[in-house]
Amino acid sequence: MTGRPVNPGAELHIGKTRTVPHLGSVTLRDYCGTDASISRAARVSYGRHNAARTEGEDAKLIGYLMRHRHTSPFEMAELVLHVRAPIFVARQWMRHRMASINEISLRYTEADNDAVMDVRGLGPLCRDPDPKDSKQGRGKPLELGPFTLDSLDKTARGELGFALDLQQADLEYKHARKAGIAREQARVLLPLATMTEWVWKVDLHNLLHFLGLRTKPDAQREIRLLADEIAAIVADAYPLTWAAWVEHVRDAPRLSASAWRALAGIVDADRLADALSGLPERERRETMAALTSAWGAR
Amino acid sequence: MTGRPVNPGAELHIGKTRTVPHLGSVTLRDYCGTDASISRAARVSYGRHNAARTEGEDAKLIGYLMRHRHTSPFEMAELVLHVRAPIFVARQWMRHRMASINEISLRYTEADNDAVMDVRGLGPLCRDPDPKDSKQGRGKPLELGPFTLDSLDKTARGELGFALDLQQADLEYKHARKAGIAREQARVLLPLATMTEWVWKVDLHNLLHFLGLRTKPDAQREIRLLADEIAAIVADAYPLTWAAWVEHVRDAPRLSASAWRALAGIVDADRLADALSGLPERERRETMAALTSAWGAR
Amino acid sequence: MTGRPVNPGAELHIGKTRTVPHLGSVTLRDYCGTDASISRAARVSYGRHNAARTEGEDAKLIGYLMRHRHTSPFEMAELVLHVRAPIFVARQWMRHRMASINEISLRYTEADNDAVMDVRGLGPLCRDPDPKDSKQGRGKPLELGPFTLDSLDKTARGELGFALDLQQADLEYKHARKAGIAREQARVLLPLATMTEWVWKVDLHNLLHFLGLRTKPDAQREIRLLADEIAAIVADAYPLTWAAWVEHVRDAPRLSASAWRALAGIVDADRLADALSGLPERERRETMAALTSAWGAR
Amino acid sequence: MTGRPVNPGAELHIGKTRTVPHLGSVTLRDYCGTDASISRAARVSYGRHNAARTEGEDAKLIGYLMRHRHTSPFEMAELVLHVRAPIFVARQWMRHRMASINEISLRYTEADNDAVMDVRGLGPLCRDPDPKDSKQGRGKPLELGPFTLDSLDKTARGELGFALDLQQADLEYKHARKAGIAREQARVLLPLATMTEWVWKVDLHNLLHFLGLRTKPDAQREIRLLADEIAAIVADAYPLTWAAWVEHVRDAPRLSASAWRALAGIVDADRLADALSGLPERERRETMAALTSAWGAR
Repeated sequence: MTGRPVNPGAELHIGKTRTVPHLGSVTLRDYCGTDASISRAARVSYGRHNAARTEGEDAKLIGYLMRHRHTSPFEMAELVLHVRAPIFVARQWMRHRMASINEISLRYTEADNDAVMDVRGLGPLCRDPDPKDSKQGRGKPLELGPFTLDSLDKTARGELGFALDLQQADLEYKHARKAGIAREQARVLLPLATMTEWVWKVDLHNLLHFLGLRTKPDAQREIRLLADEIAAIVADAYPLTWAAWVEHVRDAPRLSASAWRALAGIVDADRLADALSGLPERERRETMAALTSAWGAR
Repeated sequence: MTGRPVNPGAELHIGKTRTVPHLGSVTLRDYCGTDASISRAARVSYGRHNAARTEGEDAKLIGYLMRHRHTSPFEMAELVLHVRAPIFVARQWMRHRMASINEISLRYTEADNDAVMDVRGLGPLCRDPDPKDSKQGRGKPLELGPFTLDSLDKTARGELGFALDLQQADLEYKHARKAGIAREQARVLLPLATMTEWVWKVDLHNLLHFLGLRTKPDAQREIRLLADEIAAIVADAYPLTWAAWVEHVRDAPRLSASAWRALAGIVDADRLADALSGLPERERRETMAALTSAWGAR
Repeated sequence: MTGRPVNPGAELHIGKTRTVPHLGSVTLRDYCGTDASISRAARVSYGRHNAARTEGEDAKLIGYLMRHRHTSPFEMAELVLHVRAPIFVARQWMRHRMASINEISLRYTEADNDAVMDVRGLGPLCRDPDPKDSKQGRGKPLELGPFTLDSLDKTARGELGFALDLQQADLEYKHARKAGIAREQARVLLPLATMTEWVWKVDLHNLLHFLGLRTKPDAQREIRLLADEIAAIVADAYPLTWAAWVEHVRDAPRLSASAWRALAGIVDADRLADALSGLPERERRETMAALTSAWGAR
Repeated sequence: MTGRPVNPGAELHIGKTRTVPHLGSVTLRDYCGTDASISRAARVSYGRHNAARTEGEDAKLIGYLMRHRHTSPFEMAELVLHVRAPIFVARQWMRHRMASINEISLRYTEADNDAVMDVRGLGPLCRDPDPKDSKQGRGKPLELGPFTLDSLDKTARGELGFALDLQQADLEYKHARKAGIAREQARVLLPLATMTEWVWKVDLHNLLHFLGLRTKPDAQREIRLLADEIAAIVADAYPLTWAAWVEHVRDAPRLSASAWRALAGIVDADRLADALSGLPERERRETMAALTSAWGAR
């Protein structure tokens, strides 16, 4: 029993591990707050946090907050997750500084028998992307000839070779440990594919920022698959915030001032007000004002 | 119903407003985590977070974390408080940056009839401290002659004069508002004694840092009285962490390297090991080592 | 002499106080980094930070970083400002947590003779905004009858009355101090119009966020005037970053996903590619892709 | 030429790479502030920042700030360093969140021929520490029989085996790259010994916290050696702050409240005041008060 606000969407996920096969998992351990906590905190600004509100009013307010990037109320919800992932994913994850972390340490623990991720977690092996398109990411799948365990050899490598390498990537570590070398020295031989895990506590504002970067198509596939699992939890636990974020941030292309001026010439002015008439009144008005200002006299 | 860890000590306080008469109040609205959440997060470091532990083992680990300033596990607990206090208190409070805040705004709300704190919230009126002792704080209580409402006059002031001033400190604001002047302009006339309120969400590590500074004898009395109320909640909700913090931080004087060297000469070396023998074994050993190192050969 | 990168635009401002009459001032005291420091830090990502680059290449990279909200390189520049402003402005300012602050304290210092701002700092006195439009801000200027010092009376107030109130707003404080009441108690009588000052150290990413919020038309006029002074310094010191921020953030309206879908129907598809053809190639391509994706099949 | 405060001790280090053989390096790229900037910022609190002060007065104030953990003035100095280190060191480094980082990415760059650290960077190979003493760190040096390149074999390994493994640890990566596999997939085979580099911008308060943890004897040797190089820069650039930190933090053992009570019985009360008489007057007085309070009546 608890006297705290209870979040039914979050409760569905507490303690349920969501696994990305061969790659890792996320588990919601604890949380704090609901969509209503967020709108209530926002209403403190104008002294109306004790007034009863409908879910429709909450949705409207949360949309307003998101549209105007009033971010502080979204800090009022908090999630605690247990994450398992390979080290190369953890390295990207921990660049997000506004979160609390306790990670397993290979100074204190033995990297055990299944320390290294399975190659199937990486998806099909691919080429480098075309450098004209991108410096990062991966290009088209490699077309590799047939391989058998018999034919396998370190120089004629392909999927099977990579898979075997990955399976054996911690062999040197194990040899070094068998020879008696200290954990904190031996671990330098472990590959970036070694699994790790951590408790991750983060507020909803910073979590949405994380999801914005890590669920994008150009995020590395492996962190994206795990971020997608967290996104599914957030969508259930904070449905109003989630919808507002999708509407106003994730799915809302941002154009430069120059691009906006270029658009001015081909948007039919007479039809603009009509086209926007389906928007909520306040958003419609503010959008018209913003476009008018961006377009000047045209 | 909730699947989250439930904190019985925190549940006692949820929604119960703790009032400091004439000064303000604190109310626990929500929380996240228990002492066991903290020790469990710490055990992730060496991969033992799923093993069952006794409260005694938790206490020992939490003491160790606090003694060695391993602070990240204490970030795993979070408290959400609703605070009411005068603006001069809020100004000190908000210097603590590692927290989330939504405060009432005098741009959006009218400062109402009891906008200003009662003089009794300030305690007895005092003199400036002796400048040889301190640049801050307050000195001995003022000895003021008898006053009556009849005799009161702005130049012959004392407690009653101050009290009346405080009661009327928002009069200019009210006049300005009656004349139609906008809230955001009129508010500049309001005194620092004007009441405000905010939602304050903070993790336990940063909250203990706040309590360390704001419950000290040289903190301003008014913020100290409110901090003391929060301390009472923390002591109930996180008893193991609270005890460890009192033992290793709050009540543990810190001496400089020079002071330690000076002490070396007057501590009876033969009796030192004996004196410390009542400490937990690991702390005893580490304390002996630290003193031996600080004292050199003596 | 210094071996550090020198920023000629910033050097122009070092130690020169920029005053907003009757309201406050900002003075650049120190800084760290240039536009080139930012692009160089970004190039560390792909190991090209030691290659020589032209300003044109820096501009292009900085535009790319800003457009894609790669914010960490902008943290590599830092500014240290000395700010003077009334307390009601300081209260808004200090809600920006990602900065370092040392502020004057009224526990340690006497509020002196010109402690309170001049009414001319507030601009013309205005009415509340129309509540249909906004809960905040100020509406049209008040039309007030003629006032003279003779006719002045606390109930028939207008501009002159407000001005006199403001001049006298610290009278109660001064009386209390004369009666011997301690600074930290007497100060509660001081109005929010009391002047304060602080050292403010902030990185360029967080400073741009501050400027984004505080130079907007709906920011309170008084903080906006001071933010505008800082904007002028940033525009001189970091011209490439400033231009990119204006282009991609400040002057780029953000539409919701629904607004974008509504626009789809009235944008002439045939003319879209033409209209955008003046954009830099990579931005043009990414903008087309984003719009195509937002518009689906239409 | 610059109008900024110039820090002669820091200027000595600008652009000079300090190398830890086979392990990495640190280079000071830029900085902001001096010891005098710190004391000046602190003096803003009581409105005395424009008064001229001697170095002796600065030293006294900085000692006071450090002793009382008034940390915000130490945030007023900033350092920008370029660091090279193996990934297992970078992983510990980046747990310090209050800093700005731009790191090279193995998604965008090829791990080149000398991608992996030299074994000599690890120091002598050691055993695990005695688990009774510690879960972390390394124990006594391994005594390994003689090895020759001829006798070398993966199962009979020792120093030479480890050295060769480390040399070849990126072989699988190179094979995978030769087979055309994308950088971001191939990199998962790279060992934690792979070198990386980053720009690191951090304020002096957070840097001292880093140095406090990472120069301790129980820090991992490899991060300690690099932290020691940074400590040497700080000691030159901020000599007053450095001395105060050594005196009041680094070399000042912290005892628990229980340990203090235990000491009470064996400290000769009559000689205590005498022993402390060499301390600066204010520190002496405060130390006596703290001990008296901790010891109660004894």
